[in-house]
Amino acid sequence: MEQGNIITSKRNERIRAAKRLQQKKARDQQGLFYLEGVRIVEEALNTPLVETVFFAERLLGTARGQALIALARQQGVPTFQCTDDVLSELTDTVQSQGVVAVVKKPSWPRIFSGVMLVADAVQDPGNMGTLLRTAVGAGCTGLYVVEGSVDLYNPKVLRSSMGAIFHLPHWLATRKEMIELVQANNLALVIADLADSESFWAVRYPQDMAVVIGNEARGVHPEFRKHATVRVKIPLEGAVESLNAPVAAGVLLYEILRQHRCANPSSVL
Amino acid sequence: MEQGNIITSKRNERIRAAKRLQQKKARDQQGLFYLEGVRIVEEALNTPLVETVFFAERLLGTARGQALIALARQQGVPTFQCTDDVLSELTDTVQSQGVVAVVKKPSWPRIFSGVMLVADAVQDPGNMGTLLRTAVGAGCTGLYVVEGSVDLYNPKVLRSSMGAIFHLPHWLATRKEMIELVQANNLALVIADLADSESFWAVRYPQDMAVVIGNEARGVHPEFRKHATVRVKIPLEGAVESLNAPVAAGVLLYEILRQHRCANPSSVL
Repeated sequence: MEQGNIITSKRNERIRAAKRLQQKKARDQQGLFYLEGVRIVEEALNTPLVETVFFAERLLGTARGQALIALARQQGVPTFQCTDDVLSELTDTVQSQGVVAVVKKPSWPRIFSGVMLVADAVQDPGNMGTLLRTAVGAGCTGLYVVEGSVDLYNPKVLRSSMGAIFHLPHWLATRKEMIELVQANNLALVIADLADSESFWAVRYPQDMAVVIGNEARGVHPEFRKHATVRVKIPLEGAVESLNAPVAAGVLLYEILRQHRCANPSSVL
Repeated sequence: MEQGNIITSKRNERIRAAKRLQQKKARDQQGLFYLEGVRIVEEALNTPLVETVFFAERLLGTARGQALIALARQQGVPTFQCTDDVLSELTDTVQSQGVVAVVKKPSWPRIFSGVMLVADAVQDPGNMGTLLRTAVGAGCTGLYVVEGSVDLYNPKVLRSSMGAIFHLPHWLATRKEMIELVQANNLALVIADLADSESFWAVRYPQDMAVVIGNEARGVHPEFRKHATVRVKIPLEGAVESLNAPVAAGVLLYEILRQHRCANPSSVL
């Protein structure tokens, strides 16, 4: 039910359609996902991908919220005011900021140069979101998400990614495809492994490579291990079995960046 | 109610006392906390700090679970079997492994050498736990937890720390105390800052220092900023505002470790 311009019923068709996007299956079928929160919806509005914006009255209580709605309208994006009760159907967070957007999944041409991160069966949504954010920070050119990983468009992933989803080209791949891509494009395949490898800071990295971050519990998959061309170890000085996956990724990616940024690395320490 | 040796009632006094430790206030008053899960209780049993172990019958279904209980008994730690229903009073996780321990908080002499991490109002329990794990991995000598941070003995912190709580000396401090400690002990005070700093890889780090990781939203507190002796920047290559706090800590701590490990750093590339 839409009274004036305000959606007052949870059974409103647009609300029900948006709510279905909480399920991966619906996201896959429709090529859509949804986002909540002022900052990430602002990021989305910098792309031509936003389909619809839903908001509660409280969003208009701030200048930033007003600007967001003005920007959406200026871009011809349909905006729908909802009651708090209706909007809460679409929000996961306890303290919602009063805005949700339905967005088309971006589609990127594949890239085979620079430093590409490969998330190999990364299952925790917070870890995946943090990986995205870290990869953007460290200047990766793209992210390959390998089968068995959590969906990138899972709301918890998006929340942890802090908007990075719009700044990092990304693709799905099976493990087999990934290895074929690496070989066909003469990329180095870099894995971080605890067994029998050199310290990550003692290796000189090439320009183009795929860096595999493995599953939280099992580490890097044996198939990647078998085809790896660079195996490095992040030394553990104290009694922990491993680092958290995004921390390991950050440590390794920034060492690669450090070397790449310095034409003569030895001059930079 | 304890039938034979099995606790069958949620109102059992030992269960109620343990359950109170879910609250920070009770933990502070009693100097106790509780842990759940096979691996972390095993870690705890490597210390003399375990007061009591509660377990469900299913724990004894594995050799590892049996060994855990045998070890506890050998150490004279009282063990109590509970019904699943009773044990679920003490567990937060959906799939509990059937074991909970009540443990004394460790107490460590203060340390003022090596690389000490300072968590400055880190509020997310997952971030704090991951910081602990990262600090142990990178060989930090201790962790100072500054006012406004989440309690280190929060069950979610302990879960993310993967047992690191037993391997990293740690202390509480106010911001003022922390600055006094740093100055009185001639420590470098290192902060990671986005404004107007050198890249973290272009700085040569001293041996003894306190490295401040700031609040997730506000960054490093102005008081630390004011007294910092080393300000570094972790470059962000892409469009993200910052790195996740434990990722930033890992990147910085491993660069410090790299430099410290290499008498002649330039020879290590």
